[in-house]
Amino acid sequence: MAVKNFIPPRRLLLGPGPSMVHPRVLRALSTPLLGHLDPVFLAIMDEIQALLRFVFQTKNRFTIAVSGTGSAGMEASIVNIVEPGDSVIVGVNGVFGMRWASVVERCGGKALRVEAPWGQIIEPDAVEQVLQRSGPVKAVAIVHAETSTGAWQPLEPISQLCRKHDSLFLVDAVTSLGGASVEIDQWNIDVCYSATQKCLSCPPGLSPFTLSDRALAAIKARRVPCQSWYLDMALIEGYWAEGTRAYHHTAPISMLYALREALRLVEEEGLSGRFARHQRNSDALIAGLTELGLEPLSPIGHRVPTLTCVTVPAHIPEAEIRANLLSTYGIEVGGGLGPLKGKVWRIGLMGESSTEAHVLTLLNALETLFLRSGWLSTPGVALQAASQIYSRRV
Amino acid sequence: MAVKNFIPPRRLLLGPGPSMVHPRVLRALSTPLLGHLDPVFLAIMDEIQALLRFVFQTKNRFTIAVSGTGSAGMEASIVNIVEPGDSVIVGVNGVFGMRWASVVERCGGKALRVEAPWGQIIEPDAVEQVLQRSGPVKAVAIVHAETSTGAWQPLEPISQLCRKHDSLFLVDAVTSLGGASVEIDQWNIDVCYSATQKCLSCPPGLSPFTLSDRALAAIKARRVPCQSWYLDMALIEGYWAEGTRAYHHTAPISMLYALREALRLVEEEGLSGRFARHQRNSDALIAGLTELGLEPLSPIGHRVPTLTCVTVPAHIPEAEIRANLLSTYGIEVGGGLGPLKGKVWRIGLMGESSTEAHVLTLLNALETLFLRSGWLSTPGVALQAASQIYSRRV
Repeated sequence: MAVKNFIPPRRLLLGPGPSMVHPRVLRALSTPLLGHLDPVFLAIMDEIQALLRFVFQTKNRFTIAVSGTGSAGMEASIVNIVEPGDSVIVGVNGVFGMRWASVVERCGGKALRVEAPWGQIIEPDAVEQVLQRSGPVKAVAIVHAETSTGAWQPLEPISQLCRKHDSLFLVDAVTSLGGASVEIDQWNIDVCYSATQKCLSCPPGLSPFTLSDRALAAIKARRVPCQSWYLDMALIEGYWAEGTRAYHHTAPISMLYALREALRLVEEEGLSGRFARHQRNSDALIAGLTELGLEPLSPIGHRVPTLTCVTVPAHIPEAEIRANLLSTYGIEVGGGLGPLKGKVWRIGLMGESSTEAHVLTLLNALETLFLRSGWLSTPGVALQAASQIYSRRV
Repeated sequence: MAVKNFIPPRRLLLGPGPSMVHPRVLRALSTPLLGHLDPVFLAIMDEIQALLRFVFQTKNRFTIAVSGTGSAGMEASIVNIVEPGDSVIVGVNGVFGMRWASVVERCGGKALRVEAPWGQIIEPDAVEQVLQRSGPVKAVAIVHAETSTGAWQPLEPISQLCRKHDSLFLVDAVTSLGGASVEIDQWNIDVCYSATQKCLSCPPGLSPFTLSDRALAAIKARRVPCQSWYLDMALIEGYWAEGTRAYHHTAPISMLYALREALRLVEEEGLSGRFARHQRNSDALIAGLTELGLEPLSPIGHRVPTLTCVTVPAHIPEAEIRANLLSTYGIEVGGGLGPLKGKVWRIGLMGESSTEAHVLTLLNALETLFLRSGWLSTPGVALQAASQIYSRRV
């Protein structure tokens, strides 16, 4: 068959994920394996849970990594909570809200979509209107950082509505956890999932996942079993909980080694410093892109610092430039999804990808391509704008 | 929090999985990441598909790795095929048949259990009786190698029944693929899944998965959408299929690197040589264990060569000896599940774990422990019995 030894080309990963992975995390991946019931491995799981609680800013006992990607976490958030006939409000302002609503319906639930234009946030008033005019609403599902648009959703107002109307609060923190503050306890979030390959800078394959006691009580009170055996948290609890450690499925050992190391790096940096770094690099990127005529889709104040989605002017062949960035410079940025296909670039500065060097490298490459095509006349303007941000005192 | 750098203890993994991982596979895990839509990564996926077709002995175009462990593959085998009200015959002679039946029921299907004592195989006659007296049966689900008992199920007779009664044939090859022959095309298997951490000697986290054209047609003809979005093969096909490559979920890049390298090792060895190695080491192990008074649970002819489940005599404190093997010798073997808890050991010789050195190391450790406790009087009998197998001309 002649499948050769694989030597990857150099890549600077500045798309919507995976992000760059620290050498310590790559090294952790190649650690020899332990069995999933080995006492030494069970201690590793305890450490991962403690580190996940730190990054989720929660005391939730049930804080684990689901053995699948962020999409598995999304599915787990619904199949455990929703029973046939339950109503769930889903904020839909991009691909991931759409997907979540579809997951609710595949689970026999009724998805009450609260929509907003792509790039905008979901208005709390619109959520409250649906809460008031509907019967009981089991849960309200809101995307914190829409990976398809870069919109940054404020969560506290909607959290208050959930408490007022006795609905569970479900949050997608795939593109925020580890890059922007996700305050599970402070914001009364009941179910939250993320993904490892974004701001945690670990390879894809796991979904950090946390459940409040309120969510656990809802799961324990189910009338029918969870439709998924693989994602049934009532069973999975038996493996992750100290004391029981009953076999459910074989844990993805190597990926958990990697996640542990990635979380150690987060803890070493500290959350506030990490969030400030993401904000600063995002500010510099946007300052530079603006000089190139690339405006963020989301309005000021609602732009997540981890992923910037910019509108590409009609005269610029976006797919061609994006392919050129990859083939000539080894830089990956993302294209648009759904109705934004061909119209936007999605630039991720997440975890290890969020550095001054990466921002400057990307801006320099774009400037060069834009100058050659005549879309820019003065070299250095984007770099200069970024440097003005970086020269500010922290 | 003081989570320290992790240095794993030495382990010889001779349990029911994970098995030992080759250094080339560990190294592949630490390869820098590519994006999941990078053209270079898409070529890697093509190679993985070709290698999986080789090990599955199939021409099935739809041959992929599911982004979850073997249990996710089990769930995918049902949620894609079974619609509410469908009848599925499930062979139940151990934990994994039981689990599969539960997955059918969580999917709204009717599980028709054909049972056999644990350690025995499912009798084709018993399957035929249910096929004859039931209405239409959508699928027949059979475990090839029961990881909880070591029973090795002949598949061809049941395959013929499936064709005769127009039922789809679903096979769990978790503990056989790569260690014993799994002939998808020859045996007319319609849906088959495995796991990476058994005879493929890759870390856990992926589930090799293949669908026949008949199975694909059944999926395309569904009346209701698949209840799982994450495992919906009609959607996943769009990402793995050449030509489309539409984003579904972010592929577990690093694990796919590892699987590719593990499959390359399988191809380099060749299937027939690999199967012969597994059989030979299993024979030697059983010869040695028999001298220690440890008899396989399954009868001769129905013992899978990848995992040997032996009954532990009542006078031997199995958990204590197993813990001693781990703490003193660094050797992991598995205990019993369900009704076999405390009564058996499950010894896996899968992939990289299946070597002469490992068989001799385990037998030597057991002999030492047995001699010290007075359960054995003559040193070397187990090693001698194994060596008699190894001295035979291949």
